[in-house]
Amino acid sequence: MNGDLKKFFNPRSVAVIGASRSKGSPGYTILENLLFNKRKGVFKGEIYPVNPKAQEIQGVKCYSSVLDIPSKIDLAVISTPAKIIPKLIGECGTKKIKHVIVVSGGFNEVGNQELTDKLKESIERNKVRLIGPNCLGVINLHKGLDTSFIPVFKKTLKGEKVTSAPRPKKGYMTLLSQSGAFGTAALDYLYSEKIGINVFVSYGNKLDVDEPTLLNYFLEDEDTHVILMYVESLERGRDFVETAKKVTLTKPVVVLKAGKSPGGSKAASSHTGALAGMPEIYAAVFKQTGVISATGMEDLFDKGKALLYQPPAEKDSVAILTNAGGPGVLAADAVELQNLKLTVFAEETMNKLYSLVGEGVIVPYASLHNPVDLSGSATIESYIEAMKVLLEAEEVGAIILFPLHHPPSIEQPETLALELSELINKYRKTVVACKIGGSRMSAIVEELLEKREIPVYPSPERGVKSLKGLVFYGEWLRKHNLLSTYLKKFWKLKEERQKVDG
Amino acid sequence: MNGDLKKFFNPRSVAVIGASRSKGSPGYTILENLLFNKRKGVFKGEIYPVNPKAQEIQGVKCYSSVLDIPSKIDLAVISTPAKIIPKLIGECGTKKIKHVIVVSGGFNEVGNQELTDKLKESIERNKVRLIGPNCLGVINLHKGLDTSFIPVFKKTLKGEKVTSAPRPKKGYMTLLSQSGAFGTAALDYLYSEKIGINVFVSYGNKLDVDEPTLLNYFLEDEDTHVILMYVESLERGRDFVETAKKVTLTKPVVVLKAGKSPGGSKAASSHTGALAGMPEIYAAVFKQTGVISATGMEDLFDKGKALLYQPPAEKDSVAILTNAGGPGVLAADAVELQNLKLTVFAEETMNKLYSLVGEGVIVPYASLHNPVDLSGSATIESYIEAMKVLLEAEEVGAIILFPLHHPPSIEQPETLALELSELINKYRKTVVACKIGGSRMSAIVEELLEKREIPVYPSPERGVKSLKGLVFYGEWLRKHNLLSTYLKKFWKLKEERQKVDG
Repeated sequence: MNGDLKKFFNPRSVAVIGASRSKGSPGYTILENLLFNKRKGVFKGEIYPVNPKAQEIQGVKCYSSVLDIPSKIDLAVISTPAKIIPKLIGECGTKKIKHVIVVSGGFNEVGNQELTDKLKESIERNKVRLIGPNCLGVINLHKGLDTSFIPVFKKTLKGEKVTSAPRPKKGYMTLLSQSGAFGTAALDYLYSEKIGINVFVSYGNKLDVDEPTLLNYFLEDEDTHVILMYVESLERGRDFVETAKKVTLTKPVVVLKAGKSPGGSKAASSHTGALAGMPEIYAAVFKQTGVISATGMEDLFDKGKALLYQPPAEKDSVAILTNAGGPGVLAADAVELQNLKLTVFAEETMNKLYSLVGEGVIVPYASLHNPVDLSGSATIESYIEAMKVLLEAEEVGAIILFPLHHPPSIEQPETLALELSELINKYRKTVVACKIGGSRMSAIVEELLEKREIPVYPSPERGVKSLKGLVFYGEWLRKHNLLSTYLKKFWKLKEERQKVDG
Repeated sequence: MNGDLKKFFNPRSVAVIGASRSKGSPGYTILENLLFNKRKGVFKGEIYPVNPKAQEIQGVKCYSSVLDIPSKIDLAVISTPAKIIPKLIGECGTKKIKHVIVVSGGFNEVGNQELTDKLKESIERNKVRLIGPNCLGVINLHKGLDTSFIPVFKKTLKGEKVTSAPRPKKGYMTLLSQSGAFGTAALDYLYSEKIGINVFVSYGNKLDVDEPTLLNYFLEDEDTHVILMYVESLERGRDFVETAKKVTLTKPVVVLKAGKSPGGSKAASSHTGALAGMPEIYAAVFKQTGVISATGMEDLFDKGKALLYQPPAEKDSVAILTNAGGPGVLAADAVELQNLKLTVFAEETMNKLYSLVGEGVIVPYASLHNPVDLSGSATIESYIEAMKVLLEAEEVGAIILFPLHHPPSIEQPETLALELSELINKYRKTVVACKIGGSRMSAIVEELLEKREIPVYPSPERGVKSLKGLVFYGEWLRKHNLLSTYLKKFWKLKEERQKVDG
């Protein structure tokens, strides 16, 4: 079954049916994006434009039909008027192309059920696997495959060429999106947030390949460590539940379900032509299947990053370490809002903290009860020693860290960030960090921590929500006695990622 | 009463008592920040370091006591050990200094009630107005006054000097923060978000100047168009209610109340030594007084920006205009989550939209019911014409706009943004925009819109939450028959701001 889909994501040859000479049209941009990666040497396969009216497009020989292409074709990307597509699928069948992406819209999403049925009949008859129609297809950041018709660059009023939808860097999260527009926006967001992606799939009307199919495939995919999904509707409910239950025992799956409210749900229906379904049902289904729910786009990627970088929490009890009273209070608020617990420190933990005050490591006016607020007089030593106490405290399941670059007493905050991250990665407890602000020093500290896979969030609220994902997933794995199995694999993957990237 | 406080924010001469030669200490940095602005020509007043052990600090003549300074002093900033401060206030009294900021901690926030009482007694006896203790004091971006001890720059490991807590640009929102650390983080955030500030006040333990005092002052302050507050506790509840009720009839006040949860509330108590109070009571108080509640730091500034740039909404009925189905659905979800209404379009509105399809301006597969989704084939013309229909529709109270730079069919998105903003500012209906992603083109479009005071948010959720603030404030003003009075002033101020900044 999985070998069956592989050529969608790693084809050796791609035919672009409907490749166009008209700049800005989908058929032009798809070819442009593919050739751009090919010429950079990122995409290693062959590219064949198909258009009966052209001899050559963008410097590449063009064929009238896939049937004229002399070589074997792994994948066809179709961007033509909708009504001729069932016939084109027939040609793909004859040419023994088993994988087709139909980018074009004009099917059930606009109420054209007759054409949709024809397309369905054609793919079944020709034994073709289909992604789409009405989608962007696939972007594989590791292999350089990019079938989307979204231009990377646009022009300013002065005529300058600037990035408009840059692709993210390669990474280890796979994003599955029903909506192409959400996907496009997400790619741009991921790029600017420096979050890496393995494969992006925009699957549109999902006439064949749908959520259960994709989940099954990416369960086995080695470069996918976390799966993210944007979903408006799930037609194959039972299959989704079964598949998701299986996948979440091995890999975290975070889902943003759009169309939660009556209005949003109606909007989703008219957008995809599918029944969006009751929000309560979805929430219950996700919980029962170990799927981590996201509340919005930022939260989807925030939680994804947390699950990629950090181990699931072993307890729902959270300690906060800060040098900033106000943000510490906001984090404490967020902890309780997310139904997590603020750790009540054990006597041993309190005694260790008091000793640090006694030794002059922590200032006497620091606040030691959770949140541990080292105050604006925090020193690197006070941070390290207090962190050690929290990492060692058995009653603490996870830690929220404010490695603010702001305490006036710390002149070189990188030293603090470096020493803290070494400590954290040694103790292997769940830790997320928050920073506030976008100064140069803030960016430097953030980059340093994220390179070591300690996720950094721009507000206490977002940090705590992400932590909630790690707590939920920890509970799910514990319930199935799989936490230690998962953790073993998690640390192995993390080590490998650090080797490759670091 | 107001004239009474003015010298805190615009003094002609400042004495820094406890000015220090020791780099990195508060007394050093306060003087450094003041002198930095003085030397840049932004701060026009005189600066007098006071330290009995130094002849000169940072190139400026130093005095043993304020009593030795030959000129009149408007404002004293004290950063010395806590215990000598009541005596120093006495010297300020003798010198006829009526305004003192005590930066130092060591009073009631660490349980030292005796010293706190002494300080209180000293300011009363000497008829001195006090901001603090345990605070950062005042940053006035228009006047260049900066009494905070937060260094703007820090050093990287390689020894490079980089910004760590840069100050925001000057603007028309005033930020009042009980927490200095929140304030510091906020300044850095505001800088990176390019949000302007008029005055920032960190007032700490508020032994004298507190929330009602400050609200009264900034009600009259011409350069304050919106007031933002970070509050952990409110001791003078009745006075706050009375003052806030008065202020919100003229200026929007947005409050982030920290310590909402039991844990957060306990954290707030141990941080400030004050009773934080029940969250339900605060929520009720804010609602009754027309204060707009923020849910977190991002939301505080998001709502502030909305209220500064856009008129309060005349109805709670919201239309969404997008070219991106997925984000449109997310916005529709957010609208209902915020208890706003998705507009059901009147027949006239629908007919106008259908006509646009008939004329070929909008593609036939666009979705016309709210959200209006022009699809990825959106053109500049389709945007402008659809926007006009929504701006003219009486049943629409506010519009959420996705001026995404992503639609492949629009090669120069700036043209779209320019034409849209002209239209919006002409019709004067409430509009907020959302963009997703951080590409160069995204930044260009955002800057263009925000320069014209159409606020742009990085996610549908944040855009809609901000809009909620505009709807709430509109309801408040209508309830008091003050909406048209407010709007008249609003458009006048907006025009003036555009003249100065544009």
